[in-house]
Amino acid sequence: MSQPNQLLDALQWRYATKIFDATKKIPADLWSALEKTLVLTPTSYGLQPYQFLIVQDAATRAALLPHSWGQKQVVDCSHYVVFTARTEMTEADVAKLIARISAVRGIPAATLNFYRDMMLSDVVNGPRGKNAHEWAARQAYIALGNLMTAAAVLGVDACPMEGLVPTEYDKILKLEGTGYKTVVALALGYRAAGDKYASLAKVRYEAADLIKVI
Amino acid sequence: MSQPNQLLDALQWRYATKIFDATKKIPADLWSALEKTLVLTPTSYGLQPYQFLIVQDAATRAALLPHSWGQKQVVDCSHYVVFTARTEMTEADVAKLIARISAVRGIPAATLNFYRDMMLSDVVNGPRGKNAHEWAARQAYIALGNLMTAAAVLGVDACPMEGLVPTEYDKILKLEGTGYKTVVALALGYRAAGDKYASLAKVRYEAADLIKVI
Repeated sequence: MSQPNQLLDALQWRYATKIFDATKKIPADLWSALEKTLVLTPTSYGLQPYQFLIVQDAATRAALLPHSWGQKQVVDCSHYVVFTARTEMTEADVAKLIARISAVRGIPAATLNFYRDMMLSDVVNGPRGKNAHEWAARQAYIALGNLMTAAAVLGVDACPMEGLVPTEYDKILKLEGTGYKTVVALALGYRAAGDKYASLAKVRYEAADLIKVI
Repeated sequence: MSQPNQLLDALQWRYATKIFDATKKIPADLWSALEKTLVLTPTSYGLQPYQFLIVQDAATRAALLPHSWGQKQVVDCSHYVVFTARTEMTEADVAKLIARISAVRGIPAATLNFYRDMMLSDVVNGPRGKNAHEWAARQAYIALGNLMTAAAVLGVDACPMEGLVPTEYDKILKLEGTGYKTVVALALGYRAAGDKYASLAKVRYEAADLIKVI
């Protein structure tokens, strides 16, 4: 368990890194831990309706750059994570999770029928099913929040990237037909010494503006 | 900075708490730290298009219960956070952020005109503006992911709550006309000794299913 001040120091230290030091790479063991935090992300029903693409190929990154508002973090960062989310939710998605729960917990799938039906009547055939991609995208954003906080806690810099063209990413990453679409990205690595944004005061509204006690 | 194993232990320790010990409250200093992590959440452009309602009034929590699929975490947890997001994004939202940047960093607002116009042409009048509430909801989910990870790191239990009826929450929390709508909630506190879910194996897909390297 960490001390509160340690966590807050990490969150104060982090910022949306504008210039990465392209020569500095996240060590393999540290990257492995960050991947594990992604896998451990909590999601609604545990459905994990996403995939994380770690784009390390230089040519692919170069192809993504013009569709990322020209932000050089795409090519200069150590690890570039593209968050994709399911385009729709189907009975197969639910069956896959049920099979996984059954296997991990060593219980018959039939004992999970109530849970299965609850998911089907919500994210597949119910209200959330009508806009399942958006629901899935929100789960991907939980992963984004989790990974940004985890990176800060471990002393790794990051820059969230909403400034990208998802449809162009989908083409370059060959996502068409896979059942997943690009929603957002996160560049990770180490800030360059010359990134003047690192020293700017962090801008947040007053707590009293953002938090109301009822 | 934390060690990777410490962070992963915390993320393994956490789970969607089903039964809170209603007698255990998060100490004030620890809660204060968690509120600060919420405020420090990173958002697109830094726009912070959300408010966090900390529902501590017992009668209000009781009124929310039937609109929360009857999940008793709503009434038993120590702190109940309802995440709300802007219903739309307007020029006033952008002007408010520009004024805040100008004040915090001590620079004339006019030097931020380029940044202001970029935001206006995107989340107000541009593509994201057409579905600004959904965009704002995604930012609220970053806050949700951040707070869940922060709570785990600090040894506080939590249960994310998508199983609620946002329109009923909006009525009870008197959100109509405020420009904010309910999107999700998080119950925080301490697990009850008898919560059998605490000891179940965590179910996640294999890393190779969730993470692809390109």
